[in-house]
Amino acid sequence: MMRLSPPGKLRFSQARSFDVIYGGGESNVAVSLANYGIEADFVTRLPDNDLGDACRNYLRQYGVGTRHIARGGDRLGIYFLEHGAVQRGSKVIYDRAGSSLAAIQPGMIDWGVIFADADWFHWTGITPAISEGAAAACLEAVKAARERGLTISTDLNYRKKLWNWGLSAGEVMDELVPFCDVAIGNEEDAAKVFGIHAPGTDVTSGVLDAEKYRSVCQALSERFPRLKTIAITLRGSLSASHNTWSAVLWHHSAIDEPGEMYFGPTYDITHIVDRVGGGDSFVAGLIYGLLSYGDDLGKALAFAVAASALKHTIFGDFNLATAAEVEKLMGGDVSGRVSR
Amino acid sequence: MMRLSPPGKLRFSQARSFDVIYGGGESNVAVSLANYGIEADFVTRLPDNDLGDACRNYLRQYGVGTRHIARGGDRLGIYFLEHGAVQRGSKVIYDRAGSSLAAIQPGMIDWGVIFADADWFHWTGITPAISEGAAAACLEAVKAARERGLTISTDLNYRKKLWNWGLSAGEVMDELVPFCDVAIGNEEDAAKVFGIHAPGTDVTSGVLDAEKYRSVCQALSERFPRLKTIAITLRGSLSASHNTWSAVLWHHSAIDEPGEMYFGPTYDITHIVDRVGGGDSFVAGLIYGLLSYGDDLGKALAFAVAASALKHTIFGDFNLATAAEVEKLMGGDVSGRVSR
Amino acid sequence: MMRLSPPGKLRFSQARSFDVIYGGGESNVAVSLANYGIEADFVTRLPDNDLGDACRNYLRQYGVGTRHIARGGDRLGIYFLEHGAVQRGSKVIYDRAGSSLAAIQPGMIDWGVIFADADWFHWTGITPAISEGAAAACLEAVKAARERGLTISTDLNYRKKLWNWGLSAGEVMDELVPFCDVAIGNEEDAAKVFGIHAPGTDVTSGVLDAEKYRSVCQALSERFPRLKTIAITLRGSLSASHNTWSAVLWHHSAIDEPGEMYFGPTYDITHIVDRVGGGDSFVAGLIYGLLSYGDDLGKALAFAVAASALKHTIFGDFNLATAAEVEKLMGGDVSGRVSR
Amino acid sequence: MMRLSPPGKLRFSQARSFDVIYGGGESNVAVSLANYGIEADFVTRLPDNDLGDACRNYLRQYGVGTRHIARGGDRLGIYFLEHGAVQRGSKVIYDRAGSSLAAIQPGMIDWGVIFADADWFHWTGITPAISEGAAAACLEAVKAARERGLTISTDLNYRKKLWNWGLSAGEVMDELVPFCDVAIGNEEDAAKVFGIHAPGTDVTSGVLDAEKYRSVCQALSERFPRLKTIAITLRGSLSASHNTWSAVLWHHSAIDEPGEMYFGPTYDITHIVDRVGGGDSFVAGLIYGLLSYGDDLGKALAFAVAASALKHTIFGDFNLATAAEVEKLMGGDVSGRVSR
Amino acid sequence: MMRLSPPGKLRFSQARSFDVIYGGGESNVAVSLANYGIEADFVTRLPDNDLGDACRNYLRQYGVGTRHIARGGDRLGIYFLEHGAVQRGSKVIYDRAGSSLAAIQPGMIDWGVIFADADWFHWTGITPAISEGAAAACLEAVKAARERGLTISTDLNYRKKLWNWGLSAGEVMDELVPFCDVAIGNEEDAAKVFGIHAPGTDVTSGVLDAEKYRSVCQALSERFPRLKTIAITLRGSLSASHNTWSAVLWHHSAIDEPGEMYFGPTYDITHIVDRVGGGDSFVAGLIYGLLSYGDDLGKALAFAVAASALKHTIFGDFNLATAAEVEKLMGGDVSGRVSR
Amino acid sequence: MMRLSPPGKLRFSQARSFDVIYGGGESNVAVSLANYGIEADFVTRLPDNDLGDACRNYLRQYGVGTRHIARGGDRLGIYFLEHGAVQRGSKVIYDRAGSSLAAIQPGMIDWGVIFADADWFHWTGITPAISEGAAAACLEAVKAARERGLTISTDLNYRKKLWNWGLSAGEVMDELVPFCDVAIGNEEDAAKVFGIHAPGTDVTSGVLDAEKYRSVCQALSERFPRLKTIAITLRGSLSASHNTWSAVLWHHSAIDEPGEMYFGPTYDITHIVDRVGGGDSFVAGLIYGLLSYGDDLGKALAFAVAASALKHTIFGDFNLATAAEVEKLMGGDVSGRVSR
Repeated sequence: MMRLSPPGKLRFSQARSFDVIYGGGESNVAVSLANYGIEADFVTRLPDNDLGDACRNYLRQYGVGTRHIARGGDRLGIYFLEHGAVQRGSKVIYDRAGSSLAAIQPGMIDWGVIFADADWFHWTGITPAISEGAAAACLEAVKAARERGLTISTDLNYRKKLWNWGLSAGEVMDELVPFCDVAIGNEEDAAKVFGIHAPGTDVTSGVLDAEKYRSVCQALSERFPRLKTIAITLRGSLSASHNTWSAVLWHHSAIDEPGEMYFGPTYDITHIVDRVGGGDSFVAGLIYGLLSYGDDLGKALAFAVAASALKHTIFGDFNLATAAEVEKLMGGDVSGRVSR
Repeated sequence: MMRLSPPGKLRFSQARSFDVIYGGGESNVAVSLANYGIEADFVTRLPDNDLGDACRNYLRQYGVGTRHIARGGDRLGIYFLEHGAVQRGSKVIYDRAGSSLAAIQPGMIDWGVIFADADWFHWTGITPAISEGAAAACLEAVKAARERGLTISTDLNYRKKLWNWGLSAGEVMDELVPFCDVAIGNEEDAAKVFGIHAPGTDVTSGVLDAEKYRSVCQALSERFPRLKTIAITLRGSLSASHNTWSAVLWHHSAIDEPGEMYFGPTYDITHIVDRVGGGDSFVAGLIYGLLSYGDDLGKALAFAVAASALKHTIFGDFNLATAAEVEKLMGGDVSGRVSR
Repeated sequence: MMRLSPPGKLRFSQARSFDVIYGGGESNVAVSLANYGIEADFVTRLPDNDLGDACRNYLRQYGVGTRHIARGGDRLGIYFLEHGAVQRGSKVIYDRAGSSLAAIQPGMIDWGVIFADADWFHWTGITPAISEGAAAACLEAVKAARERGLTISTDLNYRKKLWNWGLSAGEVMDELVPFCDVAIGNEEDAAKVFGIHAPGTDVTSGVLDAEKYRSVCQALSERFPRLKTIAITLRGSLSASHNTWSAVLWHHSAIDEPGEMYFGPTYDITHIVDRVGGGDSFVAGLIYGLLSYGDDLGKALAFAVAASALKHTIFGDFNLATAAEVEKLMGGDVSGRVSR
Repeated sequence: MMRLSPPGKLRFSQARSFDVIYGGGESNVAVSLANYGIEADFVTRLPDNDLGDACRNYLRQYGVGTRHIARGGDRLGIYFLEHGAVQRGSKVIYDRAGSSLAAIQPGMIDWGVIFADADWFHWTGITPAISEGAAAACLEAVKAARERGLTISTDLNYRKKLWNWGLSAGEVMDELVPFCDVAIGNEEDAAKVFGIHAPGTDVTSGVLDAEKYRSVCQALSERFPRLKTIAITLRGSLSASHNTWSAVLWHHSAIDEPGEMYFGPTYDITHIVDRVGGGDSFVAGLIYGLLSYGDDLGKALAFAVAASALKHTIFGDFNLATAAEVEKLMGGDVSGRVSR
Repeated sequence: MMRLSPPGKLRFSQARSFDVIYGGGESNVAVSLANYGIEADFVTRLPDNDLGDACRNYLRQYGVGTRHIARGGDRLGIYFLEHGAVQRGSKVIYDRAGSSLAAIQPGMIDWGVIFADADWFHWTGITPAISEGAAAACLEAVKAARERGLTISTDLNYRKKLWNWGLSAGEVMDELVPFCDVAIGNEEDAAKVFGIHAPGTDVTSGVLDAEKYRSVCQALSERFPRLKTIAITLRGSLSASHNTWSAVLWHHSAIDEPGEMYFGPTYDITHIVDRVGGGDSFVAGLIYGLLSYGDDLGKALAFAVAASALKHTIFGDFNLATAAEVEKLMGGDVSGRVSR
Repeated sequence: MMRLSPPGKLRFSQARSFDVIYGGGESNVAVSLANYGIEADFVTRLPDNDLGDACRNYLRQYGVGTRHIARGGDRLGIYFLEHGAVQRGSKVIYDRAGSSLAAIQPGMIDWGVIFADADWFHWTGITPAISEGAAAACLEAVKAARERGLTISTDLNYRKKLWNWGLSAGEVMDELVPFCDVAIGNEEDAAKVFGIHAPGTDVTSGVLDAEKYRSVCQALSERFPRLKTIAITLRGSLSASHNTWSAVLWHHSAIDEPGEMYFGPTYDITHIVDRVGGGDSFVAGLIYGLLSYGDDLGKALAFAVAASALKHTIFGDFNLATAAEVEKLMGGDVSGRVSR
């Protein structure tokens, strides 16, 4: 997907150029994992034209595998992003209708080949939101992944403006999430997709209470018994320029055992550079943490939170922080001193 | 329509920003006319979002009337332009499917109001190429204009990649052109739309023979008896950086009189800045010339050719040369000396 | 007026390019009103050259009427702006001497035509500061507006560096303000123009006490009995990057009635993008509020304060926030969350 | 003087930034000489503000002496430059009225101090064009230089748009040129300033005949007997992008000896980068050549022509070619091969 | 290797930013081949820091394999490039001393692994020029490639400023070239490396005679009997902005058979965008042609010449033209018409 | 030294251009002093190529003397700077090995000439860190300065990544500092160079206690009895975007008198623009203060702290704040109001 944004803090009507990058949910996760040294392929569908090539090249530079990307369809999906500041929020205008991915149909991707040597499959709730075909391809994928025993993770990632092809987010996700082992959402996703609310939370107030999300995790776990690990990112939106950022992790090792709650640190992100992709960088950090730190779930969560805090300081959708940089921040050094 | 182009001579995959302007066939003509002091409105359909506003504002700065622009639909049409150089031609990727204009339907525009105080209606062959609805709206417009006695001009403007909604260019244009008084085309349009070929012409050879287009004009006139004035622009494509530019004009005052042929000067455009909109700038120059120079058709043609030669030295789709600047060039000053 | 500013936070001597926009007191108000859907014309005098055209076009894109702009004189007024940061304040260098507007004389503008269908006339204290002719033209305008029964508003807008053509700000404004119904000033204007001080206020301390300005409003009202509505903007200058922003409104419905004081909300603008035009955006917000909310003066004030808070997040002199965006902020959402 | 120009080939109304450099006739000569290793001071008057500092700093970087620059007055002179292309000529808008230099008066500069260790004084016809005071200061300077026995050179440099303070160029230059030893002009200057025409020359035809300028030189020499060396630059304006460039030099060693004519080579400048300052770079090359090559006037001329040909390939007013680069071109290498 | 160049035509001292890309001889060839769909790995040594990563990522985006790049050493080699225009030639300043590649030693690269599945090995004369270690590693590589039966090609690529570590280019290349099957050079390389001159050729005259290079090829073939295919690129340097470009190919199928000479077309590159990498793009085109067109050596040459002509229209070191674009130009379409 | 940095907050691998400036320890001090009106020469060694010229020109624009700069050697030292944000610290990659300065040897600079009319010599601990030759040249310089009775100041300026030519920082500085009268360091330098620790200080905690540095100063004074004035800058690193900044000054008038401690104000730098050169700007401010304010050491310290606070708001290595701007801030105006 192409992202077009006016430079700096300009509004759409002021811009005589747009910064162009390529990104989007799952690709953001793949790039971040590749960046941590984990072999990762990104699977999507791109038009067979110069813009599709440009998008593939952009991904490829960060070492993510692109050989399974299907080519075809009419156009590359676009989203326009206007960066906000202080009381003026950022704006996203989706222009994804009719994209190559929106026109995908089951059977276009050979999941058997892709999953042959794979251990983990991650998808986000943005994909089934795009079109009926994309939802069907998503279902096809999770079933294929389940058959082959891959760990499956999903980011609920509710996008109100996208869900307009017929079914509701809840109806579709109710079919897809049962195949998943790990689920991630932000402070609003469970409510907006499944109607599972944290008690007494107002996400525009700028203050979030981590403890309140325990019940959300338990409700999700009950609804989707396969889910053993659930993480919820907690963004405190003080303004478009200043957020706090944290997350909680809930885990139980078996369906009849009580879940344990882990609380991540909270970072005060006082000068946001680019908050898009924050959630995806959390997911990648969590996958990396779960793969690297064994049973130390608190450490995995801490890595994920630190990773995604750093993402907010990096332009574009991708988190270009290295594992070493994340670990330095995890170790408590928030001083931002010059490394020389 | 939004135009996105890599800066300078960069290829799509090299660009980290795109220059953004707004333009397109009919709007280019309208801006140029407004620039010459002729009151001109541009009628189209734009989405009711910030990008539609940005497009409208962009047009508005050049003094073209925008109050009749319909708002609605899903997206703003886009075209991507890669500027070529020497042996590497420029590339255009259209991304107009599903645009607000493509989704237009007859009845959405109140032509009666628009034409109330109007004298002239200009449209191009790009519009009916976009969709069946756009073709129908175009037909609705030419009929309304004809009823009210406006002069109607059309630029045949064949775009192969756009004509894919069902009918062929020829089938559709055969219905629309009969309403027109003035037609303009480039050296290929008559052949590609109506199969009317100039004898022995190879447009990639870089050499064009103005005289050969006399028969094309006559054939068009016979096919569409209402057409009294026909102009053909003649581009000699020496390379992407260097073109020659000229045009011929054919006119007869009545159907049973023989047509007279006028030959414009030829300009050697050795360092092209931006050739997009060259044809539109010719049309605007011709309309201005026809309105301003009375029966002096040779002068009208000379103005149109000089105007469009200048367009090639101006970035963007719009011709921002003033009438005074065009007249200076018409007067023979090609020296490009500093005005100070 | 042309505004030239080094990009980002560069100092003048570092810049190899200047960002160029066009703006200035009254035009900023007009653009903002046009943006809210209120028909607004901007009246000034511009040189009859390409720079005058560029300025007119720049205004025109935002929908403000420009047909009454007089053309003539020698040069376009310029101001140079260096954006400050933290403890380094922004710098303005005026270069307006000899501008087309400075050379204006009474009689050059036909106020009768302009005011024919108008309801409201707004001017600022910057205009009479520029030259004796501009002051005279200003007086001519307020008299003409008064005769035709327009509501007249003024922004006192004291600019020390401009008042050097002979008379003092106080002497001139004492002649002009008596014609006005509405006056707006910042926390210093009343003191610097009329010597009316709020008790115990130090504007460089970064803390302002809204209540103290009640006496300023009353003193203004006594001096200029026609003034029924007086607003004072309150900027807390914590640094060049961080301000607080609020305002108070004083109103009485008749000369012998006591005035009522309204207190606006205070916004904490922690990451200023561009504070120039902040006062003008307040004025436009107030005019819109007074026209739209009837007797609900508190709401009008709240709209004006929210509008001008948003202005600080937008590059350039113009407030490009829409009424809907202002109302969203008025409604209490300061979270700056992404709209998608 | 500040120069503001839209980037690339943009027109004024398209620009959202202006490239900013500082330059102008005499400073261009001084920088070029300093660049060749000749100690050179630039004398002017700049406002005592940040823009005056920026201008001084800009000059200083190229090693020209700035300690004699007077500071004071109201504003820095500006000129706006729109770069042309092919048939569209470049445009200059002067904005120098009221500048610090225009407000100069005799006595403000201490020529005695400045000329104490100097050998050569160069001035151009632009300076007396600016204002009566500047013309008077110029007269003061040439008299002071004459008294101290400096060689004095002048570039006639006629600028029609500047001569509007009262006297004509001819009247003023007739007083100033008698003090000079060396005069340089372009193919039009002698005609426009003194009415001395070359036979049958049309400068817009793009073709120039060097031989025809012999009579111009002789006529100048008769009018101003002190002039022993006269050079005329010959620009063939094929288009704004493509010029030819040459010059002739006339010299006689004593008043009663016949002058000898030298003809410089002609360079074909097919892709002009920036032609402003071309004449100044010729002057600097000529002064350097006269100082360095002794009696070999043909070589001095050849250096000057080559130097100024290179100037056309360099952005800005200054010629940043080194003496070694000029000599390489003089040696006949026009191939522009990569030096590596 | 990092390439830093002032934007546009700016000189080094004018630049406040440098455009940064990564490239250099062998990588340019590898990218071009990958772009044509040929699997290609680039082998070099990069420092293990963020700049080494940036260089690797830059290569990776174009699909070239980077997994065999050794990491280590102190710094990334840099070259500074100033783009020339017309009579001002481009300038290259090498800053490669002490680079990771210059510090390479035999044994650092495992050629056995790299060549395991490879068919072709290409190297250039730039590598052994850098340092004694690089020359030794190069010798190690050609021997390993020879042992495994790969086709070996070399570009003589003489760079005078680099050969300063002790031995001369001739001494070193005399050891390396005997292992090669294919050699490519420009019109000067054979002379400067081996003292083999074409009769009567002056490369700065701008005119080249293809026929004269027959004797150069034969002399090379006699000196290095293994060479069966020799190509010489022919650049006509009319100016820094305008070159002609062609090449000849000499081939014999066995040592005792006479060689056959093929003459490529000549392209007139009137508006050079970036000529760096022209030779490398020819090499890649030739390798592709030899691999794709079987015995049709004339077609292989034509592809190579067309490919490298297109390179001159593309910014950076890499040729980003596709095989289809090259073939379109081979087919004779030099018109540079818009593809839409 | 050349500094190359990705624009804005981009990471190295994202940049397609680098901002280029020139600077470095001692030059930063020299520019700042020149800016305050103090005649200052910068002495270094630059390569005799276009980049060396560019560096010299860059310095020269700010009025610093460059005539004593030695030319020669192979390359210009470079450092790459990635600007951090919030929790992501800035990164510096030094690329100075083999630079002209690193290859300096005693005898290359004629200190006798340079110090002939000088009063003060300042050097930093960065220079002897670069190479053995640079350390030797530094020793040569301090001895020559001592002989001629100049005041000598040093900035300890420990750079861990640079000290790798053999001896440790402590060993070398122990030879150099005894010649100095004034020493400046940051909160870590004394510990890292001489092992002199402030009690209980953790520089990454973001909180610093000025009082604790008294013992550091005393220990330094005992070790280097000539040092009468010692200043320590205190940076509170809350994040890469937000620091506090202060300093202490210790002074005794004679070796047997107790030292007096002065405490500077603390500035809250909430939106850092560029923190590089902060220490150097402090040094320049201190030298200026010591020279200008006589015995008022507290005022000298206050000037130095205010000057260096302003530096953090200015892009590049140089502090371009004027003395008047520093004094305004010293006077307590931190409001950053617009100066107009």
